[in-house]
Amino acid sequence: MHQDSNHSPEEALKMNPFPASWLPVAADSDFPLWNLPFGIIHNAWLKPRAATRIGDTVVDLSVLAEAGYFSTLPQDLVRVFRQDSLNDFIALGKPVWKAVRERLLSIFSEEDGSLRDKVVFRNQALLSAKEVEMLLPVRVGDYTDFYSSLEHATNVGLMFRDPKNALLPNWKHLPVAYHGHSSSIMVSGTPVKRPSGQINPGNDGPVFSPSRNLDFELEMAFVVGKDNPSGSSVSTAEAEDHIFGMMIFNDLSARDIQKWEYVPLGPFLSKNFGSVVSPWIVTMEALEPFRVAGPPQDPVLPYLSFEGKRSFDIRLEVWIQPEGAEAKRVCLSNFRYLYWNMAQQLAHHTVNGCNMRVGDLCASGTISGPDRESFGSLLEITWNGRDSIQYSDGRERTFLEDHDVVVMKASCEKDGLRMGFGECVTRILPALQTLSK
Amino acid sequence: MHQDSNHSPEEALKMNPFPASWLPVAADSDFPLWNLPFGIIHNAWLKPRAATRIGDTVVDLSVLAEAGYFSTLPQDLVRVFRQDSLNDFIALGKPVWKAVRERLLSIFSEEDGSLRDKVVFRNQALLSAKEVEMLLPVRVGDYTDFYSSLEHATNVGLMFRDPKNALLPNWKHLPVAYHGHSSSIMVSGTPVKRPSGQINPGNDGPVFSPSRNLDFELEMAFVVGKDNPSGSSVSTAEAEDHIFGMMIFNDLSARDIQKWEYVPLGPFLSKNFGSVVSPWIVTMEALEPFRVAGPPQDPVLPYLSFEGKRSFDIRLEVWIQPEGAEAKRVCLSNFRYLYWNMAQQLAHHTVNGCNMRVGDLCASGTISGPDRESFGSLLEITWNGRDSIQYSDGRERTFLEDHDVVVMKASCEKDGLRMGFGECVTRILPALQTLSK
Repeated sequence: MHQDSNHSPEEALKMNPFPASWLPVAADSDFPLWNLPFGIIHNAWLKPRAATRIGDTVVDLSVLAEAGYFSTLPQDLVRVFRQDSLNDFIALGKPVWKAVRERLLSIFSEEDGSLRDKVVFRNQALLSAKEVEMLLPVRVGDYTDFYSSLEHATNVGLMFRDPKNALLPNWKHLPVAYHGHSSSIMVSGTPVKRPSGQINPGNDGPVFSPSRNLDFELEMAFVVGKDNPSGSSVSTAEAEDHIFGMMIFNDLSARDIQKWEYVPLGPFLSKNFGSVVSPWIVTMEALEPFRVAGPPQDPVLPYLSFEGKRSFDIRLEVWIQPEGAEAKRVCLSNFRYLYWNMAQQLAHHTVNGCNMRVGDLCASGTISGPDRESFGSLLEITWNGRDSIQYSDGRERTFLEDHDVVVMKASCEKDGLRMGFGECVTRILPALQTLSK
Repeated sequence: MHQDSNHSPEEALKMNPFPASWLPVAADSDFPLWNLPFGIIHNAWLKPRAATRIGDTVVDLSVLAEAGYFSTLPQDLVRVFRQDSLNDFIALGKPVWKAVRERLLSIFSEEDGSLRDKVVFRNQALLSAKEVEMLLPVRVGDYTDFYSSLEHATNVGLMFRDPKNALLPNWKHLPVAYHGHSSSIMVSGTPVKRPSGQINPGNDGPVFSPSRNLDFELEMAFVVGKDNPSGSSVSTAEAEDHIFGMMIFNDLSARDIQKWEYVPLGPFLSKNFGSVVSPWIVTMEALEPFRVAGPPQDPVLPYLSFEGKRSFDIRLEVWIQPEGAEAKRVCLSNFRYLYWNMAQQLAHHTVNGCNMRVGDLCASGTISGPDRESFGSLLEITWNGRDSIQYSDGRERTFLEDHDVVVMKASCEKDGLRMGFGECVTRILPALQTLSK
């Protein structure tokens, strides 16, 4: 540890926005000091509360707040950090999120001994990540799913519609989206039962069956951080002030149920049985160094035009592990492939006066890249079951089977800086419903 | 008043389930004693609290609970009646709703003097309907909109799809539905701004514009009264135990925005700028005398089959009043026209394991009947603007214009018994957004 400077911790932070921590952080950790994601923890002896994570150490923010570590901040952080969701903390607004982040960067930087040297107290505030269970970090009011990957929309069009006009006429004019079911959004690790429903395999009338084409969709979701009242809209310039942070999002989809039900009003039972998010919300402040330009767009109506770089370089992976087999990576994609950016999504969502609330979730839609390795769903990877994924023990996969575990990972790397989102894990359980129903 | 019987109020109630009240009730009132709807009231000096209504008198349930009028009930009704939504009351379950209803029937029947004769106290519990403002009665978690009118689906197919195959192949197999935006559900009386968005009037590329085809949709919605956990389903036989009551629902729709955006994932900005509900939730117990059979169905998959009469005879009206003109009735329909019933809707919604929560709202979809007088939207009444509605002062309407007021009414009548839902009122304000945006 180098404490040879004469600068205060705050001054040191301005000089080096990526400080090392006095807490141990492995080189390949998703949680270096400059990440500082927010989540909700609990365990047998701790009621739900807000936390952040550095390396494998989880920091109980309610304990720090109670001990006065945020006393320079005007807001009542003890109260908001003692709740079972981050909504009330997020509602305090971006200046407070940023101030808490800066305070944490300082407290845990090598330069600062104010917590490090209080050995007895710091054991109350610091836990091992293994000691705690993660809860859904926000209480989701409304959940919207976009459809913002050009490659994904094209692939679906090639498979199911006119291959000569794979992309629908509206797609390049607006960020297509639909509303999903917020109550069925679950935190990573929650097992999900295979859904049953009407499917029409032979096109000669539907049967009731467990889904035979259960799929993941690799998505990212952003958390709305600021209300806009009904009748008001949020411009692309204002949009990022309305976004608290991001999570990995697995939009589980029953392709056979979807195919039969979705015309004309969109997906319903094929999507609302469970969607799984990673437990730590990575803030927009942490993502700032990884900002990049998105793909070129044409046309862009004035209300969707924007300035600056509005995408992020986030490497995305999907691994599938059948029971008793080795996990295999089936997808390597990147958030930057997305055609429509989050600022455009939020501007479009509110241009009609639609009100949004703190904690609302907007998912990106499946994030596919240009080649098959980067396709973000089994539908695309196996081209609707035509091809299969081979495992070394001889197993094959076209769609998800019972007891498969899907693991999604997201990470950023630039100039030797690395950070990530942790994992979004989904285990598939057998269907409750059977054909006899 | 006839108090010549020797029966206790509870015994009298069993003999006559439709007692008269000692409170004045006009013959044409929607709120006779046997209705007893639930709502949330407030005003300048009263914080939000639960109430019921008899004639033009509003009953503050929190005051009755505090004075011990529900002391024979095991639950803490004072707490749940002092909240700004009915969710916690509803979560107590059907036996409690029914017991509260029976107690109110007794307290306010002519036979019972326990409140009537306490003149000073009863003035604390009773208010004039004019003295209070109604709030949204439930905190809506998820909102689902069905599409359950055969006539409406057929009309839309005739106008926009193949007239020879107006009904889509899945329609008679399952209750088609999609998820809507719960945060934009508003209580009757809340004015709604005309939405702006992308429309494609000439089919040669979209423009940004205030909607030119703003419409109402006449619907009814039911309030979910019981949670089902993720991975479980609710059968048609169990479904009515999961329904607390019903409201009138105006699903405002921007037809031009919808037409351009809705393929392939369904309506989004065309619907999520505002949906309006009537303020009083009429319980399933109150609706019981008006139970009727719905239309014959074929086919019916086993999980959608049901026993008994599952629809209700509810007369529905829509009136449109342009600014400074007389209101004109533009629609006279009936809830019983709906093809799919609420038990089937809930069974379908959960057959894949989708969890639902107390306060979730399921709307019926536009309720159209067989003839033009009974069509439940301007789209159908004017056949997409081909025809117009004539007013006596020479005005015409094809779609809604700024400052128009839409009033929906719902009532039941049988064997001289009458009750209703009150009104669902929507005033249209001019768009905030303009073409210059």
